[in-house]
Amino acid sequence: MKDLNIGLVGYGFMGRTHSNAFHQAGHFFKLPYRPVLKAICARNTDRATAFAENWGYQSVESDWRALVARKDIDLIDIATPNDMHAEIAIAAAKAGKMVMCEKPLARTAAEALTMVDAVESAGVPNSVWYNYRRVPAVTLLKKLIDEGRFGRIFHYRAKFLQDWTISKDLPQGGEGLWRLDVGVAGSGVTGDLLAHCIDTALWLNGGISSVTAATETFIKERKHNLTGKVEPVGIDDASLFLCRFANGSLATFEATRYARGHKALYTLEINGEHASAFWDLHDLHRLQWFDHRDEGQLRGWRSLHITDSDHPYMKSWWVPGLQIGYEHTFIHQFADFVQALGEGKLCPPTFRDGLATDYVTDAVLASAKSGKWETVSSGTKGSK
Amino acid sequence: MKDLNIGLVGYGFMGRTHSNAFHQAGHFFKLPYRPVLKAICARNTDRATAFAENWGYQSVESDWRALVARKDIDLIDIATPNDMHAEIAIAAAKAGKMVMCEKPLARTAAEALTMVDAVESAGVPNSVWYNYRRVPAVTLLKKLIDEGRFGRIFHYRAKFLQDWTISKDLPQGGEGLWRLDVGVAGSGVTGDLLAHCIDTALWLNGGISSVTAATETFIKERKHNLTGKVEPVGIDDASLFLCRFANGSLATFEATRYARGHKALYTLEINGEHASAFWDLHDLHRLQWFDHRDEGQLRGWRSLHITDSDHPYMKSWWVPGLQIGYEHTFIHQFADFVQALGEGKLCPPTFRDGLATDYVTDAVLASAKSGKWETVSSGTKGSK
Amino acid sequence: MKDLNIGLVGYGFMGRTHSNAFHQAGHFFKLPYRPVLKAICARNTDRATAFAENWGYQSVESDWRALVARKDIDLIDIATPNDMHAEIAIAAAKAGKMVMCEKPLARTAAEALTMVDAVESAGVPNSVWYNYRRVPAVTLLKKLIDEGRFGRIFHYRAKFLQDWTISKDLPQGGEGLWRLDVGVAGSGVTGDLLAHCIDTALWLNGGISSVTAATETFIKERKHNLTGKVEPVGIDDASLFLCRFANGSLATFEATRYARGHKALYTLEINGEHASAFWDLHDLHRLQWFDHRDEGQLRGWRSLHITDSDHPYMKSWWVPGLQIGYEHTFIHQFADFVQALGEGKLCPPTFRDGLATDYVTDAVLASAKSGKWETVSSGTKGSK
Amino acid sequence: MKDLNIGLVGYGFMGRTHSNAFHQAGHFFKLPYRPVLKAICARNTDRATAFAENWGYQSVESDWRALVARKDIDLIDIATPNDMHAEIAIAAAKAGKMVMCEKPLARTAAEALTMVDAVESAGVPNSVWYNYRRVPAVTLLKKLIDEGRFGRIFHYRAKFLQDWTISKDLPQGGEGLWRLDVGVAGSGVTGDLLAHCIDTALWLNGGISSVTAATETFIKERKHNLTGKVEPVGIDDASLFLCRFANGSLATFEATRYARGHKALYTLEINGEHASAFWDLHDLHRLQWFDHRDEGQLRGWRSLHITDSDHPYMKSWWVPGLQIGYEHTFIHQFADFVQALGEGKLCPPTFRDGLATDYVTDAVLASAKSGKWETVSSGTKGSK
Repeated sequence: MKDLNIGLVGYGFMGRTHSNAFHQAGHFFKLPYRPVLKAICARNTDRATAFAENWGYQSVESDWRALVARKDIDLIDIATPNDMHAEIAIAAAKAGKMVMCEKPLARTAAEALTMVDAVESAGVPNSVWYNYRRVPAVTLLKKLIDEGRFGRIFHYRAKFLQDWTISKDLPQGGEGLWRLDVGVAGSGVTGDLLAHCIDTALWLNGGISSVTAATETFIKERKHNLTGKVEPVGIDDASLFLCRFANGSLATFEATRYARGHKALYTLEINGEHASAFWDLHDLHRLQWFDHRDEGQLRGWRSLHITDSDHPYMKSWWVPGLQIGYEHTFIHQFADFVQALGEGKLCPPTFRDGLATDYVTDAVLASAKSGKWETVSSGTKGSK
Repeated sequence: MKDLNIGLVGYGFMGRTHSNAFHQAGHFFKLPYRPVLKAICARNTDRATAFAENWGYQSVESDWRALVARKDIDLIDIATPNDMHAEIAIAAAKAGKMVMCEKPLARTAAEALTMVDAVESAGVPNSVWYNYRRVPAVTLLKKLIDEGRFGRIFHYRAKFLQDWTISKDLPQGGEGLWRLDVGVAGSGVTGDLLAHCIDTALWLNGGISSVTAATETFIKERKHNLTGKVEPVGIDDASLFLCRFANGSLATFEATRYARGHKALYTLEINGEHASAFWDLHDLHRLQWFDHRDEGQLRGWRSLHITDSDHPYMKSWWVPGLQIGYEHTFIHQFADFVQALGEGKLCPPTFRDGLATDYVTDAVLASAKSGKWETVSSGTKGSK
Repeated sequence: MKDLNIGLVGYGFMGRTHSNAFHQAGHFFKLPYRPVLKAICARNTDRATAFAENWGYQSVESDWRALVARKDIDLIDIATPNDMHAEIAIAAAKAGKMVMCEKPLARTAAEALTMVDAVESAGVPNSVWYNYRRVPAVTLLKKLIDEGRFGRIFHYRAKFLQDWTISKDLPQGGEGLWRLDVGVAGSGVTGDLLAHCIDTALWLNGGISSVTAATETFIKERKHNLTGKVEPVGIDDASLFLCRFANGSLATFEATRYARGHKALYTLEINGEHASAFWDLHDLHRLQWFDHRDEGQLRGWRSLHITDSDHPYMKSWWVPGLQIGYEHTFIHQFADFVQALGEGKLCPPTFRDGLATDYVTDAVLASAKSGKWETVSSGTKGSK
Repeated sequence: MKDLNIGLVGYGFMGRTHSNAFHQAGHFFKLPYRPVLKAICARNTDRATAFAENWGYQSVESDWRALVARKDIDLIDIATPNDMHAEIAIAAAKAGKMVMCEKPLARTAAEALTMVDAVESAGVPNSVWYNYRRVPAVTLLKKLIDEGRFGRIFHYRAKFLQDWTISKDLPQGGEGLWRLDVGVAGSGVTGDLLAHCIDTALWLNGGISSVTAATETFIKERKHNLTGKVEPVGIDDASLFLCRFANGSLATFEATRYARGHKALYTLEINGEHASAFWDLHDLHRLQWFDHRDEGQLRGWRSLHITDSDHPYMKSWWVPGLQIGYEHTFIHQFADFVQALGEGKLCPPTFRDGLATDYVTDAVLASAKSGKWETVSSGTKGSK
């Protein structure tokens, strides 16, 4: 079995989920390549070294350009803040490396487009870590939709609710808080939480035609950790939109970090002519399923416990009734990536799929500003 | 339409639920007789008069013997504490009245047997207010069982949990607290809560063969309201048993007033070869249903919202999605009683059915005392 | 105790809920007047007569003008289709009658305004049957908000989902189906379901400033029952909007009759700085409550079973743990109406409150047409 | 950091969960020793070799005596069927190895006692894999109990329901099915599922004094995979008992593999004077908590999402809202074992704790046979 040599940039929350995936994928899935954790790269060498020791990376780099230049690296994995995605990805593609990139692909669709061009010109395998496609319950839902079990789709609704930024004392910017710094993040919840909702929705329900949106920044000023000064907050704290999908269905989307009581409540629901389904990240191992074709008096929402061997990915794990958790979604994506590699295929969501989401988030932010319905750019057609 | 003249004995909690049923049944169900609230009887004339005014009873009696003697009364309804059930019922039967009696039928099976003999000798219509059979979800469950949808039954489990007697300061006895006075009530939770669980179980799952039980009185002494003195507590605060049903299934039963956080959590579950079902009084308008014959990957517990017109009793109420409540179970039983009357039939649970439950509670209390398995008397075969 | 003589117009679904309320209110609540079911009015005399017999109305009228003219009527209750509300209410007010009117108050705000003017000029008591304010869980929520327990409000979201019009074979118009006839109903789900969401929201969260909306008619043509011909459908099948409240919070609203699996899923949620709450009509006896001031490790959503005597309206019903149902909301409103009458007060929601909702539904329909944000007319300030 | 050299016996389901724990513990927890997967031992060398390759074991042994004899092994981990536990554990202890053993410790208390004697005589660290103690929700519950938050305990109830042996066509014995072979397993659900319930209960609620039990074998004969013949089934398919704890509380326990619709529904509930809690393996990341000291009108069951950094073990994982799964319980136990090793302490549940559970299962099986209450041997006092 050939090695797949990985160079990771970034050691934060996402650096951990990706590293764990590199370790675990082979224990549970048959892989055509053996992942090798070749190098971790970060400016802070002390932390990078500690991270390398903890996760078994063989070497440490402090300059991502040096990492990209190394001959012994096959795959560059980007787990940095958003403002570094494009530069690293483009350089990596030019160097002929495969590229995996944390979501959102970029801060704007324009920026994302340069990345798509780079990987497509270079012809290198590429993938964006929209991990929630690989929650087994969500993967099963996609399968049920593709089998035509819903009939005509009337409604889609998604929300991603958190509550961790309600305190006025929380600073913006700096280590761990770059998601509040608009320069680094590009936007607030739109590119962070809403992007997850959109990626799944495009995958499940097809392209979005047009949107009308509202955003809000509830706390207008916060201390910036890097400057030490109280500065205006540039990000959106909440982002909501209505939209029409190409298939004629209507939808509501909402993301916020001001929904008290919700830690990471990503929920989605789809209502079709014959069936409906609902999923909730807080109980990610369940899928709620309603089938109108059931016998009348016994129709009801079924709570499916997605832990059986005939559920997506689950025959590789434990026995029925025993749930998996959050990090498994990354393991699944990496396993799929490596298996696709072995078959010479791309592993969606590709950079082009990631771009499709950025076209929607661009439209959302534009509508929130213009107060009008905005058409989503045709980039919504991603790979399947 | 002929009148059905009712004389009620007792004006407590159950006096209210019955009176409400007499009023409401005709608004929602087609009845062959018109219920007339002829008289309310209670020793406390002031309260009886106020009750009569509130509920529209035409007259007040202070002596139940006078009530039973009245020619203009067709039906005696007994809503007194348990120690009065037998005497009133037997007298009423002898006087040729129909008799409805609050549950449990009596304090012991021996006492209950005299009541059964009385109504059967007199040939008068009779019924015990085990109201939970008429929760539409429970009635539907009975129908599903009778249709053979469960296959062989392996398990039954029921519990009725409350928490209102945990405080040491609660007195025993007197108005509203007679359920803590063993002389009046006969037993504690065994005759009160457990009896409900048993009645439903006998109806759904057939006869119980033998039991092994444990009871406990957590608070050993309480002030008695009538004597004003601290006296030993004679009732059981908790009552648990395991049993074998005639159909070979195994079961656990539990009732207590010491389960903090539960107000009236009557739950039951039945597990069969092909299907299972679960019901919970705290959400009485739902039935949980699992069918193993569903497609494998989509098997799950269905939460049925029992508010459709094809659900038992529900076409008489509102529209789908709109739930009914607790008191409706009494309305259903009374409507069924009057309809059965019109057809010359008995309305179960009859006194004989009520006796069957008393045989089981007797065995439970005997086992708790003997520390051995006790056989349930053959009286468990009730009417259907 | 003086009589309160009631004349009802209409015998449909709402005629039943109102009649039940007239009967039951006095059984459970202390009323300063005795409701007397004096007359029922409807064009179909046979049905009206049957209805009168079932519910105990003393007389039948076939012309509402005759009813309004009767000296022995104190209160005109309107339970007709929407297109008759204004004419009857205005005539009743002019005749000095109290008026209760089914919601929505009228088909448009302009129409509703004429009704407000009429009752206010006449100085007659008036109320609109937005019954969900009187679900005990919702009433409790209002109390918690008024006590300031939420702090600053960030988000509100409400939806009302049904699925009963998905079939293409369902006709529009005629008995029981007038809600699909735009001429009679005024609009589709906007005036029907969404109006409920809006009334509750205005009550709980204050005025709405502006909206952006989308509506859809999924089935474009249906047979019309009255003409027998296939005709274009004029109503909206689904209606969604985003809005900003005067208090700065952001909200999503959605109503549809095309959400498979949901019978009457009216849900609402409010997120504040310190607390959040969620309610769901399908389990109307529960309120979900989250309080951030709870001890950190033990913070969680509490499922409150609203059946205790310290919960709104509940000390008049049964004992803790025993739920009430849908029709009780009407009983509560009528009891409140009669009690307010005794105190010489108005019982909200008044016609002016009902007008406030119509201003919002007007804005929603306007925005759906214009594709722009629409400002809500200042009429949103209702009585408290 | 010193190495901790591990030799694993067995490669089945539990071999996988243990191996995963050895790999993952160091990625998430600070360990004083580095686990080294030195050798895997199994009779089937091909499978053992494949397992070694998949999980990174450095060598393969086919005879566990050879493994125990190796100088380079510090810890023997036993993941074999139950009938091999004692022999291997005793030999390992005699050879001075630390021993970790899958549950139940042995088939009978007598057998378990020989193991306890062996490890205690040898003075070697030892632990039994009762993994559910390390579900963060369960660990938190233990902490809440130890803090005295429940006051006097009245009730405990636990059940472990599965449905995978209902089919008559399932054989007994052989690879993957040894749990149905009484010679190998020792008992059916009593030693398998019920043992989990008992271990947690003893830990949370203290010793059990006496039990009354019932067991049942629903399918009396099955084909034996090893003999190829239809043979009587020796195991119990279901096992239920009532018991009294030393603290005066009453309890019900139930385990079965015939509860249609439940895959691995291990639930437990404890009711105290002031508080109650409920936990369910099917949503293992949640704890239901009720506190009577909450404000009256706002009392309710709280659904705690055990994913915050102040919850046990959780600060080592992801961010709030992101759940972990089943295998993490093993990682936690192994991390605790290694940390205890560094501090020279034992990591409960020790073999002595495992023995305590075997004393209870012995009493359960004895009572099921005798039809009487059986006293539990005093061995119920385990380490803390």
